[in-house]
Amino acid sequence: MKIKKIEIGENLFGKNDEIARENSELLRKYNILSLNLMGSPGSGKTSILELTIRKLKEKNITCGVIEGDIAGTFDSERISFLEVPVVQINTGGACHLEAMMIKKGMEQLTLNEIKVLFVENVGNLVCPAEFKLGIKYNVTVASITEGEEKPLKYPLMYSVSQLVLLNKIDLLKAIDFDTEKFFQYAKKTNPDIKIIPVSGKTGDNINQFVDFIEEQLLIQ
Amino acid sequence: MKIKKIEIGENLFGKNDEIARENSELLRKYNILSLNLMGSPGSGKTSILELTIRKLKEKNITCGVIEGDIAGTFDSERISFLEVPVVQINTGGACHLEAMMIKKGMEQLTLNEIKVLFVENVGNLVCPAEFKLGIKYNVTVASITEGEEKPLKYPLMYSVSQLVLLNKIDLLKAIDFDTEKFFQYAKKTNPDIKIIPVSGKTGDNINQFVDFIEEQLLIQ
Repeated sequence: MKIKKIEIGENLFGKNDEIARENSELLRKYNILSLNLMGSPGSGKTSILELTIRKLKEKNITCGVIEGDIAGTFDSERISFLEVPVVQINTGGACHLEAMMIKKGMEQLTLNEIKVLFVENVGNLVCPAEFKLGIKYNVTVASITEGEEKPLKYPLMYSVSQLVLLNKIDLLKAIDFDTEKFFQYAKKTNPDIKIIPVSGKTGDNINQFVDFIEEQLLIQ
Repeated sequence: MKIKKIEIGENLFGKNDEIARENSELLRKYNILSLNLMGSPGSGKTSILELTIRKLKEKNITCGVIEGDIAGTFDSERISFLEVPVVQINTGGACHLEAMMIKKGMEQLTLNEIKVLFVENVGNLVCPAEFKLGIKYNVTVASITEGEEKPLKYPLMYSVSQLVLLNKIDLLKAIDFDTEKFFQYAKKTNPDIKIIPVSGKTGDNINQFVDFIEEQLLIQ
């Protein structure tokens, strides 16, 4: 599938929250469930997205994707193999997505054909958390390779997220990672946060993320 | 948690660069070799630092450390076990260290007792690369768990670094990672970059990083 690409200039930034509200209203109008995947570089956002989209497609739930990267089209190329509409946003250096980029991205999508919109933010555990996009759910993708103390070291990301996908659990035997402590630290930072341990490699527990999405679709 | 937000304007960079020059002059005056470790959250900066400092101590090379984190003192506590002077800087939300923070950090250290100053930047593969600190060497700590394409996705970080420590090579058997491609992508982004594959867990090749530091000390 052809990848649509948008170059975003730095002067587009501004009135972010206002545009985020507009984005949110537009998504509500089209009854689209939206999720913003954030996390460190290489935490596995794209792999999880690939597996999740495959499973949603099997259930005839249509998806759209807005891919945010500083440079390149690696991730959108991977997603486009799945034959879902994908828009690549290159931030040109900026360390996060902003509401205007999502607005421009949505203009490239046929919204009435989409039930679930995924945003994959720039790989960064800090800055993306500071910018509202108008996307309903913030999902942190954390990798066990990052260490269990990250919720305490990067509290804002965990505070603004409703869900954590704790990724790469297939490596639990190879890596010193204290899952119980991770849960404890994440809950300390955000008592309401939901955590699903998954593997973007083996597909373990991805069904639980799909279940979460289907539940949210029902209460939309 | 209150977020300190930084608007990145020309003036800020201008002032930052000026302070960075002052830092650089101060370090030259005291004949201190300085290295700024940057990389994603959990790439292994602190583990490498621990091993390196241990080895430098054995050689009677005195070290000092400035630890940058958004919140908490996890890393400085780990370093302080090694009985080296360490200053913790909490950025209070900011996604990177700036020259003024290094200046304040150095004020807390007895500079004439230090031969090598390490700065551990905030875990972030994007923003720290944008701010000059006055530190001589930029070192990117990359983990093989992040994937081999990161030099192309985060080009600025690799452009401003003289050295890459490609970490977690102990996991090479457990993880799909194309080392050759990583080298190729890193060299494409920065042809002069030096890459040392290491393990912060087993200590493999940390000696090569120590050798690098000793070589730079000789030519100071």
